[in-house]
Amino acid sequence: MQKSSISRRTILSGIAPALLAGAMRNTGNVERWGMWEQTFSGPQKGEIEFRAEFRNGNRLVFADGFYDGNGVYRLRFMPDALGEWTFTTHSTAEALNGKVGKFVCTAPSAGNHGPVVVADGQHLRYADGTPHVSIGTTCYAWAHQSDELEHQTLQTLKRSPFNKIRMCVLPTEKSPQRVPFEGDDHTRFHIPFFQNLDKQIAALCALRVEADLILFHPYDHEGFQRMSDAESHRYLRYMVARYAAYRNVWWSIANEYDLVKKKTLPQWDEYFRIVQEADPAEHLRSIHYSKRFYDYSKNWVTHLSLQSDDFDKTGQWLSEYQKPIIFDECKYEGNISKRWGNLSGHEMARRFWLGMASGAYVGHGETYAGPNGNAWLSKGGTLVGESPARIAFLKKIWEEAPPGLQVSPEPYYPFVYKPGSYYLYFLDLHQPAEYQFKLPEAESYRSDVIDIWNMTITPVTGVWRGSFTLPLPGKPFQAVRLQRAA
Amino acid sequence: MQKSSISRRTILSGIAPALLAGAMRNTGNVERWGMWEQTFSGPQKGEIEFRAEFRNGNRLVFADGFYDGNGVYRLRFMPDALGEWTFTTHSTAEALNGKVGKFVCTAPSAGNHGPVVVADGQHLRYADGTPHVSIGTTCYAWAHQSDELEHQTLQTLKRSPFNKIRMCVLPTEKSPQRVPFEGDDHTRFHIPFFQNLDKQIAALCALRVEADLILFHPYDHEGFQRMSDAESHRYLRYMVARYAAYRNVWWSIANEYDLVKKKTLPQWDEYFRIVQEADPAEHLRSIHYSKRFYDYSKNWVTHLSLQSDDFDKTGQWLSEYQKPIIFDECKYEGNISKRWGNLSGHEMARRFWLGMASGAYVGHGETYAGPNGNAWLSKGGTLVGESPARIAFLKKIWEEAPPGLQVSPEPYYPFVYKPGSYYLYFLDLHQPAEYQFKLPEAESYRSDVIDIWNMTITPVTGVWRGSFTLPLPGKPFQAVRLQRAA
Repeated sequence: MQKSSISRRTILSGIAPALLAGAMRNTGNVERWGMWEQTFSGPQKGEIEFRAEFRNGNRLVFADGFYDGNGVYRLRFMPDALGEWTFTTHSTAEALNGKVGKFVCTAPSAGNHGPVVVADGQHLRYADGTPHVSIGTTCYAWAHQSDELEHQTLQTLKRSPFNKIRMCVLPTEKSPQRVPFEGDDHTRFHIPFFQNLDKQIAALCALRVEADLILFHPYDHEGFQRMSDAESHRYLRYMVARYAAYRNVWWSIANEYDLVKKKTLPQWDEYFRIVQEADPAEHLRSIHYSKRFYDYSKNWVTHLSLQSDDFDKTGQWLSEYQKPIIFDECKYEGNISKRWGNLSGHEMARRFWLGMASGAYVGHGETYAGPNGNAWLSKGGTLVGESPARIAFLKKIWEEAPPGLQVSPEPYYPFVYKPGSYYLYFLDLHQPAEYQFKLPEAESYRSDVIDIWNMTITPVTGVWRGSFTLPLPGKPFQAVRLQRAA
Repeated sequence: MQKSSISRRTILSGIAPALLAGAMRNTGNVERWGMWEQTFSGPQKGEIEFRAEFRNGNRLVFADGFYDGNGVYRLRFMPDALGEWTFTTHSTAEALNGKVGKFVCTAPSAGNHGPVVVADGQHLRYADGTPHVSIGTTCYAWAHQSDELEHQTLQTLKRSPFNKIRMCVLPTEKSPQRVPFEGDDHTRFHIPFFQNLDKQIAALCALRVEADLILFHPYDHEGFQRMSDAESHRYLRYMVARYAAYRNVWWSIANEYDLVKKKTLPQWDEYFRIVQEADPAEHLRSIHYSKRFYDYSKNWVTHLSLQSDDFDKTGQWLSEYQKPIIFDECKYEGNISKRWGNLSGHEMARRFWLGMASGAYVGHGETYAGPNGNAWLSKGGTLVGESPARIAFLKKIWEEAPPGLQVSPEPYYPFVYKPGSYYLYFLDLHQPAEYQFKLPEAESYRSDVIDIWNMTITPVTGVWRGSFTLPLPGKPFQAVRLQRAA
């Protein structure tokens, strides 16, 4: 089976981007949800319009190309259907106009399930139907660091439970190691910055980690809030042209959008529409706030990206918005002074369970102050906290559950379930010595008591049916799993 | 100094009530906030009106007497001012009408600070001005048990931190050991029930425990909800006549009033007014709910008695109601199935700290299922939980603080303080390794780190002033105390 261009890139990750691109250029074939890419020679810089139409049977899809420096224009596309695709380019530059070609989209390789999409009003899945349990973390500036530190972050992710990372495109630090623009000129992209970002997003893809790309933010040491509308639109289109063909990309229009004082709600709406219209792959789109909820009912929002720990509102919000909910920021494990960054590992792990049992997904972050201030949340590097092991434990349980678990409306203790088949309760800080469950009479169930902190799963002897009282350990932070007996 | 009638009773608690009453009858003198009592002979039963006016200088105060069985009518009064008091009785029965007498009110004995009253829109104090830090517990049915078990409850309270107990007057259990009415006739009081209650309220007073008497409740095995308005009013007047002279009495019109389906809000309002009008001592008055907040702004309500764990709303409620707030039920330590009764000891203790730091008082309860179901919450007996020791630890710290601590509006971490003098922060589940405090520049401060669970108080070396960064242990559930250096 043909390897995807992305995994090929990863294998060759030590090689210069130009060479990588060359390695892909004439393959002809690309796997489904892999990245097809072709380069074209054109004018050195200038305001060039460059796009292509892609055809597959009766379907016609448009994608923008982008300038990659040194007279090289690059066209990327993620085919989502098998078979032959043809393309024709359109450009204001004659050298880039009317180029045609074709390639064949082949079956995806093992582990390539396509982009993450909305499965229904509550769940996520991959495009091929595989359920996706989103277990996110956040490293705002990890892709603005030294090669060595970025490599270390990827190695850490590889050993972690996390399959999504929230990351800022625009630097958040003073005097970052990598800069996206030529000096203060927000119309001139600094190409090596984006070539490095290409490499890291591809590396995340190889690790099956979704890249939740934060397009704007208020942490404005470099003056990005002063970008004009024209500059902002140009930047957004460039990002979509460059990254929409990576299957692991999500768009987060902003982090804490309401702290970006120079932008208004109509501007944020317009940014959403620009991304929505330009992105042929229709990647997930949301926006993250500080205090003021964005109107997540707007049709260009695919899911809720919350800064909140109101897990008990999940049911209400699911009912109201009919979209998946991700508590991307429910505060972080760490020990800094700020109260958003000094939860214990225990509390961080507990919040993952609270979110899961409420019908939502939860995001992690870590903010232990190190000798060089190199907290995971900003720069990546290594993880030192106690929650990731517990989050991995939960992830395994969650992934073993049947997909599409429902949320019980107003349960006595929160749980998710598949009727007649699977029930997962989280008892949180409650410590009952026993509890009477009431399950459908038709089936018998096996039960396990799960200690979320000590990471033990203890089967309770017996088979249970209908209304029954299960002995429990009388300790807090336990979960109970009931599964239909074979 | 003359001993109060109450402490005298306690000393003689093994002796029959009639003999006790006799022991007090001719003393002539009574200490301030002690109980003056005199008995009168009258008709055997019947609807007798019997009250007295008490004069002290220019003041005139009315108090109802009550029938105590066997032709004995009893008049009780708690004088709140020193000097000579005279009284004149009024009755529809000739034998009880126009009786006059006098007694002298002397200085209170050591430990008698008078009834608890509202100090201001946030705090409680005793009538003599001594601050009162309310540390409550709940034993609904403790005074309906055997002599032995009631004795055990009192012994447990004596060794506990609790200085208030919420207790139902009307039994909550099926077939209680003690019953307040003759069979189903709610117009005929079963006198021995109340004579026992006299003894136990006096015993609580001797232990300096406030008796928060719950007058109605929905736990209706004995049909108390079916009491007519006339029967209810008669019962309320009897309770006030009999117990208003105990300085440690509070009136809780109901527990979970909104679960008493047969009664309406106007009826509850009327019950408040009956108690308010009849009670010459003006004891504290509130009502406890299940889901539906009573309108605590009504003028006959002295404080908020909440079933809630929304400690972060305390500031808003203090500002809105301008009355002290008691979280009488924020769930209980225990291990029963019900989520209101299975908090860990750690969580129960944490909630006391959260309440304190928010500017409120908190109530404890314990619901460990024992071999005979004898949980503290219902029957009293012994305490087995882990929170009382931690609550005692908090109580000591709280009582050593200056009185009248203010609440900081929207603090970053909640704290209570006396400006320039004393600051007590609770960091809850946050675990900062350091924190920058900003205190008034004019003073220097000593600081202590307090571990609320391990009950340690660790001074931080140094004297601090103005804006300073204090090293902290980086563990959750710590408090920080800053006190002006001598």
